[in-house]
Amino acid sequence: MNYTAEIICVGTELLLGNTVNTDARDISEALSELGINVYFHTVVGDNPQRLKSAVEIAKTRADIIITTGGLGPTYDDLTKQTLADCFGKKLVFHEKEARRIRDFFRRLDNMAMTENNLAQAYFPEGSIIFENSIGTAPGCAFDSGGKHVIMLPGPPGECKAMLRSGAIPYLKKLSDSEILSHNINIFGLGESAVEDMLRPLMISLENPTLAPYAKTGEVSLRLTAKAKNRDEAEELMKPVLEKVKDILGDYIYDVDSAGLENTVLRLMQERNLTLSAAESCTGGLLSKRITDIPGASNVFLGSIVSYSNPVKTGLLGVPAALIAERGAVSSETAVAMAEGARELLNTDLAVGITGVAGPGPDEQGNNAGTVFVALSGEKDTCFRSLKLGTDRNRVRIMAVHHAFDMIRRYLTGLSVI
Amino acid sequence: MNYTAEIICVGTELLLGNTVNTDARDISEALSELGINVYFHTVVGDNPQRLKSAVEIAKTRADIIITTGGLGPTYDDLTKQTLADCFGKKLVFHEKEARRIRDFFRRLDNMAMTENNLAQAYFPEGSIIFENSIGTAPGCAFDSGGKHVIMLPGPPGECKAMLRSGAIPYLKKLSDSEILSHNINIFGLGESAVEDMLRPLMISLENPTLAPYAKTGEVSLRLTAKAKNRDEAEELMKPVLEKVKDILGDYIYDVDSAGLENTVLRLMQERNLTLSAAESCTGGLLSKRITDIPGASNVFLGSIVSYSNPVKTGLLGVPAALIAERGAVSSETAVAMAEGARELLNTDLAVGITGVAGPGPDEQGNNAGTVFVALSGEKDTCFRSLKLGTDRNRVRIMAVHHAFDMIRRYLTGLSVI
Repeated sequence: MNYTAEIICVGTELLLGNTVNTDARDISEALSELGINVYFHTVVGDNPQRLKSAVEIAKTRADIIITTGGLGPTYDDLTKQTLADCFGKKLVFHEKEARRIRDFFRRLDNMAMTENNLAQAYFPEGSIIFENSIGTAPGCAFDSGGKHVIMLPGPPGECKAMLRSGAIPYLKKLSDSEILSHNINIFGLGESAVEDMLRPLMISLENPTLAPYAKTGEVSLRLTAKAKNRDEAEELMKPVLEKVKDILGDYIYDVDSAGLENTVLRLMQERNLTLSAAESCTGGLLSKRITDIPGASNVFLGSIVSYSNPVKTGLLGVPAALIAERGAVSSETAVAMAEGARELLNTDLAVGITGVAGPGPDEQGNNAGTVFVALSGEKDTCFRSLKLGTDRNRVRIMAVHHAFDMIRRYLTGLSVI
Repeated sequence: MNYTAEIICVGTELLLGNTVNTDARDISEALSELGINVYFHTVVGDNPQRLKSAVEIAKTRADIIITTGGLGPTYDDLTKQTLADCFGKKLVFHEKEARRIRDFFRRLDNMAMTENNLAQAYFPEGSIIFENSIGTAPGCAFDSGGKHVIMLPGPPGECKAMLRSGAIPYLKKLSDSEILSHNINIFGLGESAVEDMLRPLMISLENPTLAPYAKTGEVSLRLTAKAKNRDEAEELMKPVLEKVKDILGDYIYDVDSAGLENTVLRLMQERNLTLSAAESCTGGLLSKRITDIPGASNVFLGSIVSYSNPVKTGLLGVPAALIAERGAVSSETAVAMAEGARELLNTDLAVGITGVAGPGPDEQGNNAGTVFVALSGEKDTCFRSLKLGTDRNRVRIMAVHHAFDMIRRYLTGLSVI
């Protein structure tokens, strides 16, 4: 059977924009892995009438309703009461859970238990109880008239832990199929170009499915298959992955990579090579991105953020005459920066980035988005000359992506420019 | 009139759990500042039937419907078509927008425009168009039968920018009162400590209201007043702002600052001072953060990312003996790094940061989160010794925040340590 689930997150703080709804993301991710369709998320405040109306709507369009939030001890925690009402059930007291809650407070010897905490020991009749390994509020699940209801706590850590320990095992018993996904990582093509190239394939597919997602300057394709087990799912995806590789060629930089910097770091680690950088307009972003990854230090030795010309000439050895003649924003300066960094920091490869991040043009009249990225290796130095628009944030991210793309192409024997 | 809004986010990637719904948070936050009630968020996939059903439900319970996503060029981008259908409107072609889209691609000379991009130039009849300053897809707003519909793009950066430039001004015109807010920026106190100190004041207030918000390592208080006009709103807030300043003292680093780096940059610009940095565990994050701001180059001259010891000794002149004796992760090394950067880059102030970003301990057995931050000025160098937990991302952000906090305290004559 193909189940459909709806996630209802209860919490006024979500409607006020105080917190972002990571619970819905975490639950959706888990459901998608289980092969359960999610067609709607609903967020509603700590208001029993509106929660009730959301549940009534969900009952008409989902087999499984998963709620988060409103399980705590305070007067506005009304999820269990409301869901019980919607399904015509009573709340019953669980002595075992009451004991657990009392024990929880006993262990925190600086905290006295107020009586309202025992509200957390009441559950709709016939519920399976999910223990809360982090906080006091247990969750639960029940079924009624062919619908399954699961209630999880709102705090993201508690929700995620109970999802793993309680909800997923409960749901696995309902489902008989496995869903598996791969992310195909692409650089150098926009989302619409990717779709244009793949539309006939995408339309022809039913299982697996193929869908593009865009982040700033990157596109990924998610390939998802549903089968009896993991091996069969992989078998279904294999020929499609090959077809996508045939069509997109070396625009694909990896599969299941967390980002270009991760692929670059892995390629360099495999080859035992070191990297440094000289960054002007990106101001440290490339360094930051690669050092976001634990263990980057065996590859990335350091960088010079040369946000002023004296740093370019004094430290990186870019000739002042070259800057005077060609400009600080020029391919020649980018090349000299990369070569200077490679020598100064004594690495196998070095990147040089200079340009105008924007939003306005620079004092020399170079437009925002004019960027030169150079890569210096043992044998030679090459560069890309780019126009990256006028959004400062995007210009900087794209410049860094181009630098990483040049490195991965260099390391895998592809044309770099 | 008291308006009620519902946010409908369109995107299968949200239902699959690939992305977290920051758009709903950003929009909710803005609506709450405008005094518009939000009772529901709905998330729906790229499916016109289900989107239609979500819109029909929203029509029964909200005056304002704000959608995100599905405005792009691809065949599954159906938000405008669906909303037009729900309100009995046709889509009409806007030549001006088509021109803008063509221009966008012309400026990116390495990207060809595919014809499907022109779908983005169609809007429900009678729409006001919102320009997209970052991507290609414009947004729009229309009203019909007393309901207001606003459509924003899905990518969070584009959504947020258009919220500010298009949606908020549109919504402000619906309201006859003026809502004004100030953000009180705090560093060095947690959210619960702030709430504890201010609870009596917060509870006593009705207009203006005061509410705390936490980001990683920073807290802000939002002070919001509703009045006939801006001057009256300001008058209402003034005494409360003074009271908050009395209670929190120099934990308040600014009012209405976009972040510590913005306050630091402004203070340095006012004093005509220059800054450089030597970054180890933060790997360029401090440099990245300050150069995120346009115009940082008159203050921030550059930095050395010393992600390996040879860069610390060779470039920054940290004595090898000092590293051998005290360790690369020590207050002495942080001080030597700051002093080295200040000399090498010839700036008035310089920061040195060394530590263990985590998640694990370093090879010398220093725990994750052990960080030393030094600030070197004309007369002396001082440092903070920090324990920042084990979350790599948080450790790095907090280290940078401490560096900025030291600078703002130094510049405003407060104790730095």
